[in-house]
Amino acid sequence: MNPDPDYSAAYLVLRTDDASEPAGHGFVFTIGRGNDVQVAAIRAVASQLVGRDAGDLLGDLGAVGRELVHDSQLRWLGPEKGVIHMAVGAVINALWDMRAKRAGQPLWRLLASLSPEEIVDLVDFRYLADALTREDALRILERAQPGRERRARELLATGYPAYTTSPGWLGYSDETLERLAREAVEDGFGQIKLKVGADLREDERRLALARRVVGPDIAIAVDANQRWEADEAIAAIRALAHHDLAWVEEPTSPDDVLAHARIARAIDPIAVATGEHLANRVMAKQFLLADALQILQIDATRVAGVNENVAMLLLAAKFGVRVCPHAGGVGLCELVQHLSMFDFVAVSGERTGRMIEFVDHLHEHFVTPARVHRGHYVAPLVAGSGAEMLPSSLAAHRVPAGRVPA
Amino acid sequence: MNPDPDYSAAYLVLRTDDASEPAGHGFVFTIGRGNDVQVAAIRAVASQLVGRDAGDLLGDLGAVGRELVHDSQLRWLGPEKGVIHMAVGAVINALWDMRAKRAGQPLWRLLASLSPEEIVDLVDFRYLADALTREDALRILERAQPGRERRARELLATGYPAYTTSPGWLGYSDETLERLAREAVEDGFGQIKLKVGADLREDERRLALARRVVGPDIAIAVDANQRWEADEAIAAIRALAHHDLAWVEEPTSPDDVLAHARIARAIDPIAVATGEHLANRVMAKQFLLADALQILQIDATRVAGVNENVAMLLLAAKFGVRVCPHAGGVGLCELVQHLSMFDFVAVSGERTGRMIEFVDHLHEHFVTPARVHRGHYVAPLVAGSGAEMLPSSLAAHRVPAGRVPA
Repeated sequence: MNPDPDYSAAYLVLRTDDASEPAGHGFVFTIGRGNDVQVAAIRAVASQLVGRDAGDLLGDLGAVGRELVHDSQLRWLGPEKGVIHMAVGAVINALWDMRAKRAGQPLWRLLASLSPEEIVDLVDFRYLADALTREDALRILERAQPGRERRARELLATGYPAYTTSPGWLGYSDETLERLAREAVEDGFGQIKLKVGADLREDERRLALARRVVGPDIAIAVDANQRWEADEAIAAIRALAHHDLAWVEEPTSPDDVLAHARIARAIDPIAVATGEHLANRVMAKQFLLADALQILQIDATRVAGVNENVAMLLLAAKFGVRVCPHAGGVGLCELVQHLSMFDFVAVSGERTGRMIEFVDHLHEHFVTPARVHRGHYVAPLVAGSGAEMLPSSLAAHRVPAGRVPA
Repeated sequence: MNPDPDYSAAYLVLRTDDASEPAGHGFVFTIGRGNDVQVAAIRAVASQLVGRDAGDLLGDLGAVGRELVHDSQLRWLGPEKGVIHMAVGAVINALWDMRAKRAGQPLWRLLASLSPEEIVDLVDFRYLADALTREDALRILERAQPGRERRARELLATGYPAYTTSPGWLGYSDETLERLAREAVEDGFGQIKLKVGADLREDERRLALARRVVGPDIAIAVDANQRWEADEAIAAIRALAHHDLAWVEEPTSPDDVLAHARIARAIDPIAVATGEHLANRVMAKQFLLADALQILQIDATRVAGVNENVAMLLLAAKFGVRVCPHAGGVGLCELVQHLSMFDFVAVSGERTGRMIEFVDHLHEHFVTPARVHRGHYVAPLVAGSGAEMLPSSLAAHRVPAGRVPA
């Protein structure tokens, strides 16, 4: 649980000598203390690029990604996990932002305009041989190629499904929960999510309340934020199952493949959802191989950027698992929508049963804020990855010099 | 592989207002770039302790460990892995150094003087319920209580077995390999270790050479440093097995429980050894539950310090797995010997088939350098954890101000 988050971001701007060319923006979302540690890590990674030719880098972002992830000295600090891995992700994401802006395309369109071979070249297949080969990935992408244009038009017309966590925070009064749940239905969301795991009787009561408000046709997921041991999770979910749960999120330690697999078997057919804290593609691979998750919740700033998330999408497609990204925080909605939209157009070809988390919070700081209409993310039209924050917001919230107290 | 390490350490000194009391020293070993990131993380964690009463902290290091590991904001940067987790480890280790110095005891003796209940209080049992309970841990420690004094005397008389990696680095000429392997035998080591995984024919040749030099009675382990995919590992180890391998170390990604389990089944009875990059006790637990390792190689600065390594030792004892710590680097020998010696005296009660890695490198920088005699670590007698470096070494190697180029 995160009882006292202080929403923050370690923010990066990559510039070139040519002031007429757009900068690339990226960040790692953090929840307060330690944001400066993340900044130091981004500096260490980004310094590897100083003095190099932007065109060369942007022309082969797969190679750049592999180079940064496998830098032998920085790698020691993970390997491929935590602060240093998220820093690599911020740098790779900033390069994608720059590339998309140079191409004049929103990131999802840029990615969906690449050939299957170009997409596969982005992936680091190291340690994936027992789950996803280059040939597997190519087959998946080639299978999706025929419908790309049609699906892009569908996206532009109707958007990508969203769900909302707004009603579900612990500590809300019953009145607030009821009001926000009702508003979620009125706003067209097909699913809401409630935090659980602090007190089973309270969870029972709040779920009953939420179900009464939203009725039988709106899905309700629950999120335990890693609260439980495996057996506690199984007992709690069985006790709550009669409320018709869409999924159970983060029932226990995000590192625990075996516990998630056991939980998933025990609560079947209720789905286990996890991913926002999955450290890398090797962890995601194991969760898929072990049937330890049924919903993969990719996060835009936890792993090594767009490249590793492309690997995640391909893994999910290979295993036939739905991807429902984690979002919220600072700017996670802005970033991750591009990955789901790319997935729909060029990878899985599916939107059914998939949705992106939405929290209506802090979008006002972004140059191109995520927009949700009638329960769907509106497909972005503006060039870039969505990461760029307003100069005024950056100035006001800068630590330690900003206007707004940190 | 770490082709170009630049051995470094993010070094921490904890002081109190009372200048007559000893300071506590701790560090994280790194291999160069990113050392400053690790320093920033240690600063972020250590700042949580500023202004608090040293006696209170030292009196309940289990509670301090759980507080630092579960700090809700810093935890986001892991959780419990990588830079932020290693920083917690450095702070906890520095507190143990201070406590051992105040107690006038080497760390291994201090730990081995605690009651089973006091030792169990150090452990964070979160996410361990399916493998090790408080009651399990108490039973293990109580079983080992009767022989503590006898084993401490044995340790003082004969030390703790060591093995050496010195002959085994890739890139050594045949002459160097031969000379160092011969010296290892002459120095009384019962096991050497060779790096493998770059080229199978070279591995074959170097193993044959080493076996000819050391004869049939000296054990030879191999270390692949994460080079292989799972199937490559199985094929390579089967091809090399006729050299009588003591263990195969880090055959693939250190995150990959399932791949290690598959490799272990396929190469049985050759043991899989791993642990220097295991992020935390939850990963170690899974490797044990899945029979994915037969040798647990704890590392003194990878996890959340002495406390989490006590959990690791108890897990290994519960599963009947040998612990053969990773060492080398900067100061890892100095630190980790205390954990193995504590394990022998108060946890597993075993030395047979267990040994600590030894690399004869950089010990001259430490106030109480690790000493190996006739292939055994000599039990430290000086108070503290072994972490304290000489002021002259700290001054000379300080970055960016030191005398020796970084």
